[in-house]
This record gives sequence, structure tokens and C-alpha cells, in this order.
Amino acid sequence: MSVEAFKAYMKEMKAYQEALNLIFWDMRTKIPKKAMEERTDVVGVLSDKIYQMQTSDDLKEMIETVPTQTSDPLILKAIAVAEEDYQRNVKIPQAEYRQFVVVQAKSEAAWQEAREANDFEMLAPYLEQLIAYNKSFSHYWGYEGHLYDGLLNSYEPGLTTAILDPVFETLKDALVPLIKAIEDQAVDVDVQQILHHFPKDDQKAFALSILDRMGFDFDKGRLDETIHPFAIGIHPFDVRVTTRYDERDFRTALFGTIHEGGHALYEQNFDEALHHTVLADGASMGIHESQSLFWENFIGRSNDFWDSQFKHFLSHAPAAFQTLEKQSFYRAVNEVKPSFIRIEADELTYAMHIILRYELEKELIDGSLTVQELPKAWNDKMEAYLGIRPDQDIDGVLQDIHWAAGDFGYFPTYLLGYMYAAQIYKRIETDIHMPMMIKMGDYSPIREWLTEHVHRHGKMKKPLELIEDMTGEGLNPDYLIHYLTDKYTDIYQIK
Amino acid sequence: MSVEAFKAYMKEMKAYQEALNLIFWDMRTKIPKKAMEERTDVVGVLSDKIYQMQTSDDLKEMIETVPTQTSDPLILKAIAVAEEDYQRNVKIPQAEYRQFVVVQAKSEAAWQEAREANDFEMLAPYLEQLIAYNKSFSHYWGYEGHLYDGLLNSYEPGLTTAILDPVFETLKDALVPLIKAIEDQAVDVDVQQILHHFPKDDQKAFALSILDRMGFDFDKGRLDETIHPFAIGIHPFDVRVTTRYDERDFRTALFGTIHEGGHALYEQNFDEALHHTVLADGASMGIHESQSLFWENFIGRSNDFWDSQFKHFLSHAPAAFQTLEKQSFYRAVNEVKPSFIRIEADELTYAMHIILRYELEKELIDGSLTVQELPKAWNDKMEAYLGIRPDQDIDGVLQDIHWAAGDFGYFPTYLLGYMYAAQIYKRIETDIHMPMMIKMGDYSPIREWLTEHVHRHGKMKKPLELIEDMTGEGLNPDYLIHYLTDKYTDIYQIK
Repeated sequence: MSVEAFKAYMKEMKAYQEALNLIFWDMRTKIPKKAMEERTDVVGVLSDKIYQMQTSDDLKEMIETVPTQTSDPLILKAIAVAEEDYQRNVKIPQAEYRQFVVVQAKSEAAWQEAREANDFEMLAPYLEQLIAYNKSFSHYWGYEGHLYDGLLNSYEPGLTTAILDPVFETLKDALVPLIKAIEDQAVDVDVQQILHHFPKDDQKAFALSILDRMGFDFDKGRLDETIHPFAIGIHPFDVRVTTRYDERDFRTALFGTIHEGGHALYEQNFDEALHHTVLADGASMGIHESQSLFWENFIGRSNDFWDSQFKHFLSHAPAAFQTLEKQSFYRAVNEVKPSFIRIEADELTYAMHIILRYELEKELIDGSLTVQELPKAWNDKMEAYLGIRPDQDIDGVLQDIHWAAGDFGYFPTYLLGYMYAAQIYKRIETDIHMPMMIKMGDYSPIREWLTEHVHRHGKMKKPLELIEDMTGEGLNPDYLIHYLTDKYTDIYQIK
Repeated sequence: MSVEAFKAYMKEMKAYQEALNLIFWDMRTKIPKKAMEERTDVVGVLSDKIYQMQTSDDLKEMIETVPTQTSDPLILKAIAVAEEDYQRNVKIPQAEYRQFVVVQAKSEAAWQEAREANDFEMLAPYLEQLIAYNKSFSHYWGYEGHLYDGLLNSYEPGLTTAILDPVFETLKDALVPLIKAIEDQAVDVDVQQILHHFPKDDQKAFALSILDRMGFDFDKGRLDETIHPFAIGIHPFDVRVTTRYDERDFRTALFGTIHEGGHALYEQNFDEALHHTVLADGASMGIHESQSLFWENFIGRSNDFWDSQFKHFLSHAPAAFQTLEKQSFYRAVNEVKPSFIRIEADELTYAMHIILRYELEKELIDGSLTVQELPKAWNDKMEAYLGIRPDQDIDGVLQDIHWAAGDFGYFPTYLLGYMYAAQIYKRIETDIHMPMMIKMGDYSPIREWLTEHVHRHGKMKKPLELIEDMTGEGLNPDYLIHYLTDKYTDIYQIK
């Protein structure tokens, strides 16, 4: 088949994906309550259609014949990505995958019930089955080192436990003592001073202005409200950010919007030549997360950011905020406090939440930890890394949906993204005077830099290739360690 | 193939339609500006998919074999409807239909430009082509009497010019003199008294409360804002109403919401057995319009309605409305005034706007009127029926998109719906004391009656079959004539 036929095929596949993405957005923002169940059937029909196209004999033929007809690197890369998807999909026997999907759906429901009853036993049998399926999938997909690598690779191509283990050990060695030192420090941060009532519409006005300064294009996207915030690229010309407003804690919406805005900038700025191809997508989950954490933490939670935005923030904030002093405010939004729930964690302890999950899921997959042993293992690690121990599993092993949804190998991408973000920040500084740029309150040169070095490439490069091309080195935890150490020894005045 | 296979096939087809409907809703309410063009490609892919399923050999086989395997009336009716769609689609040569779609798209763009330039000549060549295609389609589809009948039938199965011509003549004979009498009458209606600034959010609160009283289920639908209001049934559990707020004239949003709410009640209340079949749809365009006009005019613009809702209205309205007197207000919202633009017409002159279009499009199809003669013919009829003559084509023949979009035979369904609504109202009165019920402000028994006699049947009955089963007679213009005559001789105190 011809190159043109392959292009048309990709474009059609993308059209179904676009419809599906709009449905996902709608299901999480606008859909009437009683339509939810029904709509999942529509998701099923469209997903099946995409799956058929990803695994069709037509596509197989294109994968075999198109590379002989062109030397266009874009087409060749698109064929390579399509082939990876093809292989991943066809390697799992369809009957087994169908069974997995059924268990997955039952498990998610069981997770909800287990949370309500605070009873891990209700979820345990499903977890056992999902782990067995994941092991089986990893065998089908193949791996060289650890059985877990097959899973990890599906989210972060090229990453292995051989790379991650020493990196996470290095992080642990640096961060656990830092967290301990902060706990032991006499200096305290007063977070109460920023927890005043802040009307939703005013929060929204400020969040919109920040999105705008970040370079988010509102002609190619929008901001809506939801329960569990996300950003979704329906198409690069239609990227939607969502947020949740907590009127008693503005941080939820503000930092959430900046975080999702970082994802959105990635999705809005793929090179136009990639549109309508499988390459108009993030390089990996980790690279995607690097973009959100870059903006949320390295920009949004920085002293430089608040130097320029504090007055602007006050102009939207109610009277109770007006007596705040900027430096004290900056310290308050950066309070470090070990806590049970990952998605509520501060930017320092967050890393430990991920390492804990990585270590546990690796053991679950290689069989050195059983599901029965999991809750205690969770709590033990929590105590070892953060010095706190959950009283109930809802504050521990039951908090995240990932495992209950059959996702193993996903968690480390959060922390990979964090390390990548620190590496990218360091690299940007060789081109742009970041403190000055951030203080000026115009972030468009930063967005342009990211577009040039990250966004526009989409899936043209593998994650580590992208990082190496950009920074001249591979994954390196030192930049994140330095960033966190410098920032928090300053805030907490640790000697 | 089996009955079960046919059900699964319909369900899958409906799923694609559901995705498409969500996209339509989004394109008219939420989509970012720059995504519009791109999204039309997605519409194309999904429409093609549905067309393929409507005309596939698999479906053809089901149409032939399923009726031999079941006596279930629902399945047999679904097969019949699927067969009608199949026949309509396969009778037109695919190449010719593709050409038509291209001309249609160019014509819609030309219509926009012609409106901006107020120059009918820019549209004329496209209209000529679209009329030629429509004639050709009517030949393919077949008809017994007038060439126009083939087109009319595609919107209103069973209706013909032989039925419509005398009915519209009767209407004309009654309404033209009534409109003239109102014009000549000394009594005047003061519409200025209701044209005060009315904040959007307050209008919305009142509109939502009326939708709620009508029995609109907000767990199965929502209300959004748009430029050109519509209601869309994405699925019976997800029916979305849209409206437009004019802060200087509350009537736009209020009566618009009630109108679209009437459509929405129809879409929300198909019998559950019909869901996921081609039968979960309105019986025809005319029956659908009967539901919207029933609520908008017969309920919403009635004296009884304002007897119960006027205080409630005032509780949402700004100070400038508070001195209004109910009876004067009622007369004001029912002002009759011949005007050029159909969608802004009052409920009496509206009928003449439709008759004018029906007569003209019939002549365009049978060739007794040329496109070149059209603007003058339009203006002549306008003068004959409403006593006013447009100065420019933008106030005349260029105002509606229908013809420019290739739709001929659609306009009369608006007036059919109006006559059906009057017939239904008369019929309801034999079961429900309407003035009392409307005055009580609880419209749920009315909604329930409509569900029992109209909504739940979906496409199980043809439009005239539905009307005859319900009222014991066929299409009859007398009820509409009586309604309009009684109402407006009273309001304008015509002796």
C-alpha cells in the first residue's frame, strides 16, 4: 500500500481517537448523571474500532511495505510507532485481554466498595488476578532484565529497573534525611495564614490569567471544572484543561491549573506536520509529567514567580489575604509535611510516595511480596521514609486507583517526570536567565524554549533520546536533589 | 443473520451516532475557535462510518432474513425503518451524492458571503445546482403525485402536496384577513414595556425553573448557551437544550428555552425498549416540531401560564419590570406585527412565513419558478400575505440557510408541527382541564399525557398514524385557525 494510503489510514484512526477524547472530556465535565453508564458502551465501540485499526491486516501490510517506498523520517517514525502498537496489541491473545478487561472493571468497582468499607480484603482477590495478568502480559511483550521491565516499558519506552533502581536509591539517600531534618527543625511554616475563603470565580480569574501568561492558547483550548482534574488533547487545536476549586484552599485550583496547563502546552505545540499521525502525542508518560511539574513546581512554586505575581494574586484575593507578607506567603505555599495521601503531598515528600509504590509493585510483580502482605509492607515503608504510619488502609494502600485498575509500571513515570523537569530547568538556564525571566512575569520565552526542545517533537524521539539530545546526558537524579535541597534548606533554614 | 446480531448492529450504529451527536453539541457550544475546521473532518469520518453501516451488505441480509425469524413488532418496525434508510441511501448513486455534498458545502459558504454582500447573485448558481440535485433525488426515491413529494416525504413520511395544498389554502384564507384586521385595528399593544435590561443569570434561573416544571429531567440532560439555539438528543439519557440570552429582550431566551425544552421532553421519553434502536427518534420533523410549539405557544404564551408564572417571573426580574400589570404584560408578549425575519416572527404571522416558503420551493422544484425570478417572487408574496415588502434580499430570500444547504421540503414541517400541536391540545382537553392545570403551575400531568400518546412511541408510528390514533382524525388546520382566531381577536379586541 502507498504512503498516501498510510497517511489516510492514520488520519482516520486519529479521527476516532478524537471523538473518543471528546467523550472522555465530556464524561468528566459535562455529562448528565444518568448518561454515564450508557456512554461507557459508546467508549467500548470506539475503542474496539481503534483497536481493530491498530491490529488490522491492512496496517500490517503498510508496516511491511511503506518503509520500502519512502525515506521521509516522519513517515518512517510513524510506521515504527504504529508497529510498536501493533506488536503490543497482537502479542496478547484477544481472549485473555477480554478477560483482563472484565476483571479490571470488576476490580475498579471493588476498589470503590473497599474504600467505602475501608476493607482491603474486598479488593485483594482482584489485585491477585490483575497481577497475574500483568505478569503474563510482560512475558508476551518480552523483557531483558526484570519481569517488571516489560510493564515499565509500556509507559516509558527504554526505561528499566536496572536504570531506575540506583537512581531511586540515590534519591532516597538524599531525600529521607532532608525530610527528617525539616521535621526536626525548630523553624515552622504557618500554613493557616493562607487558608482563607477565596470565592471560586475570583480563583478562576487568577488561574486564567496565569494560563494566559504561560502561553496557553485559548483559541485552541479551554478551562472547565471537574472533580479529578486532568488535561486532554482532543486535537492540538483543542486542548482542554480542567480544575477543581476548593474555596477554603486556593492552592488546589491554582497549582492544579498550572500543572495541567503544563501538560496542555505540550499538547498544543506538536509540530503541525505531526498532526493526524500517531506522532502527535507525548514522547512518554514521564516526559509529559516533566512538562506539568516543570510549570507547577519549578515555576509556580518558586520565589521568583511570587515576586512578580504576588500583587496580582492579591488583586484577585479577598480582604483576609491583604495583610499577608510575600516571603511568608511563599514559605506557606511550600510547607513540607509528611502526609498519607500522595495527591495532597508537598513537592518534597511527593518523591517518597512514588518510590514506595515503585518498590512495592516491583515486588508484587516478581512475586517476592504477596497481596496479603501488601498493606503491612506499605505501612512499614511509609514509616521508614516519612516517619508516619497510616491507621487505616484508606490512608494507605487503598488510596490510588492505579493498581485496582490493573496499571503496574505507571507510578515511576511521575518521579521520572520530576527528575526530567529538574534536568530541563538546569538546561534552560544555559540559554535563558530564568530568575529574571520569571520575575518579569512573561513566560512566553520559556514556553517557546520548551516547544523548540520538547513539545514540537511529539513522539519523534524516545524519552531518553529527547533528554540526551537536549541536556547531553541521560536520566540523572542530581538536579532534582539539588533543587529540593537548596530550596528547602533555605525555607526551613537548615544549617 | 439472527435477531440478536441485528440488535447488536443497531446498537453499534447508535453508538457512532451518539459520538457524532456529542460532537455536534460541542461544535455549537464549547469548541475552541481554531478546532472547528479540523472537527468537521471527524464529523466526516463518523458520518461515513454510519453511512457504510446503513448501506452495508450485512444490513441488507438482516433486512431480508430477520423478519422471517421473529414476530416482535419492535424488531419488525426497526427492520422497516432500517430498510427505508437503506433504500433512500442506496438509490442515490454514491458519486452523485458526493458531488452534491461538495456543492452543498460551497453553497453554504456562498450563502454566508452573499449575506455579507447582500447579493443574491452570489448564491444563485449554487441554488440552481442544488435544485437540480434535489429533483434528481426525488426521481431516484420515487413519488406518485408531485415531484416535490419525494422530498417532502424524506422529512415527513406520508405527507404529499395533495394533502398540504388545500390545508395551506384554508390556513391562508383564514389568517391573511386576521392579520389584516389586526393591522387595521385601533387597539395597540405596548411591547416597549417589557423591553428592559434583564441580566443573563437571572433569565437563566427563571428558564431553568420553567424547564424543571415542564418535567425536564436534569439527571438526563443540561442547559447550555449557544448562538443558534437547538436541542439535541445524544441519547435519551443525555438530552441537551441550548439557548441564547438577549439582555434587552428576555423573550428570546425564555420562549426559546421552552421551545427547545419541548423537543427535549420528546427525546427524553422514548420507551426504554426503543433505546439503542433506530426507533429511538422522533416520528418525523413535523411531530417533533409539534412538541416544541405545543410548549412554546400553547403553554408558554398562554394567559393561563402567565396567571400562574407572572409573580414568579417578577421574582427573577429587575426593578424596571416590577410595575408591570399582568394582563398588559401578557398582551405584550403576544404582540402581532408583520416582520421580515421568520425566526423573529410572532406566532400568528409565523404561519405565513412558512406558507410563502412552501409555495416557492414547490415551484422551484417543478420548474414553474426560476432561481432568477425567486427574489421578486419572495417579495411579492411577502407583500400579499403580510403587507410588507423587503428592501433587500438579506431581509428576504437570503435569510434562511435551508435552501442554501440543499434542504427542500423541510420548511412545511414547521407549520405541520404547529397544526399537529393545535390538534393535540384540543385532544388533551378531553382528558385534562388544561386552563386549571396550567394555572396550577404543575405541568407534569401534561408532560405525562404527551409521553403516553406521543413521546414513548418514538418512530414506532408514522406521523399521520400517530395523529390519527391520538385524535381520531388526520391533519386538520381548523384547530390552529380557531386557536389563533380566538386568541388574537381577544387580544386585539376585534369584533
